[in-house]
Amino acid sequence: MKKSSKPQIPRKTVYRLSTYLRCLAPLKEKKIQTVSSDALAKVAGVKPTQLRKDLACFGTFGTRGLGYDVAELSRRISDELGTSSLQPVILVGLGNLGMALLSYRGFEKEGFEILAAFDAEPARRRDKQIKQPLLGMDKLREFVRTNLVKMAILTVPAEAAQEVANTLVRFGIVGILNFSPIVLHVPEDVMVNNVNLAIELENLSYFIQE
Amino acid sequence: MKKSSKPQIPRKTVYRLSTYLRCLAPLKEKKIQTVSSDALAKVAGVKPTQLRKDLACFGTFGTRGLGYDVAELSRRISDELGTSSLQPVILVGLGNLGMALLSYRGFEKEGFEILAAFDAEPARRRDKQIKQPLLGMDKLREFVRTNLVKMAILTVPAEAAQEVANTLVRFGIVGILNFSPIVLHVPEDVMVNNVNLAIELENLSYFIQE
Repeated sequence: MKKSSKPQIPRKTVYRLSTYLRCLAPLKEKKIQTVSSDALAKVAGVKPTQLRKDLACFGTFGTRGLGYDVAELSRRISDELGTSSLQPVILVGLGNLGMALLSYRGFEKEGFEILAAFDAEPARRRDKQIKQPLLGMDKLREFVRTNLVKMAILTVPAEAAQEVANTLVRFGIVGILNFSPIVLHVPEDVMVNNVNLAIELENLSYFIQE
Repeated sequence: MKKSSKPQIPRKTVYRLSTYLRCLAPLKEKKIQTVSSDALAKVAGVKPTQLRKDLACFGTFGTRGLGYDVAELSRRISDELGTSSLQPVILVGLGNLGMALLSYRGFEKEGFEILAAFDAEPARRRDKQIKQPLLGMDKLREFVRTNLVKMAILTVPAEAAQEVANTLVRFGIVGILNFSPIVLHVPEDVMVNNVNLAIELENLSYFIQE
């Protein structure tokens, strides 16, 4: 964790801030100026007390009876999350899932740009046209430094994941979005978020058994 | 929640069971017969006490000094999760992300088969060959009933997500893996797991700010 200047917000609160931001977006589009904490909480699927507590984390600016200013609240949350400007990201591991994520447009819309993709075999034939450069692992170090990249999406096979993660960390990556189905061991100042699509299905599967 | 016959395990425990299952797989492949709770806990990134507590949820079968039988523990967890046999899944919403997930091979390996994909415009031109049938929403009801499908992957745009979810629930879907960036409102006996890739990046982004 690298934030020394301001107090850390718990991870779950940060997730909820992201949700609030997404719930505010359609209001902003419709030029709605204020929203009550009750209304915003309802759309976000949380209790109003939870919402008020979360937003109090970075200073109160709701007005009792009037609610929150939609544009200001959006801006404050974006600033807090560090997504006010487009952030550079690299992707490592050009298998099926890696290729799929490269062509997914959802990241850019939310403030993240995948600048380049890396693979042990960048020249291997792939069935799709990708706009980003596909580079070998030997180019990783220079690319990360030149482009001030701090975040990486990791989509290599399980057996390569820890070693690649070590390399990423050594070259200055401090945030890893890990799609490999293993638990990565990283230094304390590096943050890993895990996404395992099969595990999400498996979890559903448990709860829907008769 | 449809499990009336056995006690519910908390959702977080179910996630950890999935992790244990994945940590056991390489041991099974290497024909290792037993594993201690300490060793398994370490690979899984949890405390040994946590692991023992989790596994005690569905009966103890570790032997002090010897540990757990790798094959038996795997089988017990699979049975518990309901993934011992291949489970049918449908995907709804053939945008960029939907197409990407259709071609992702990771689900089948873990016991889930995407039988078909549905979209409001199934005939729209797409740049990729997909092996599953692409069907219109009018075919959804019959398909779900005929194939006894209980789980759906939802990758429609945010503005369509709630309505499509309502349709899915009406036709008998009880588990939804939701990739749309909205909070779905569903009846109590329907389970929703949310995956929002941009939110995961945003969350990382917060924690790596200097």
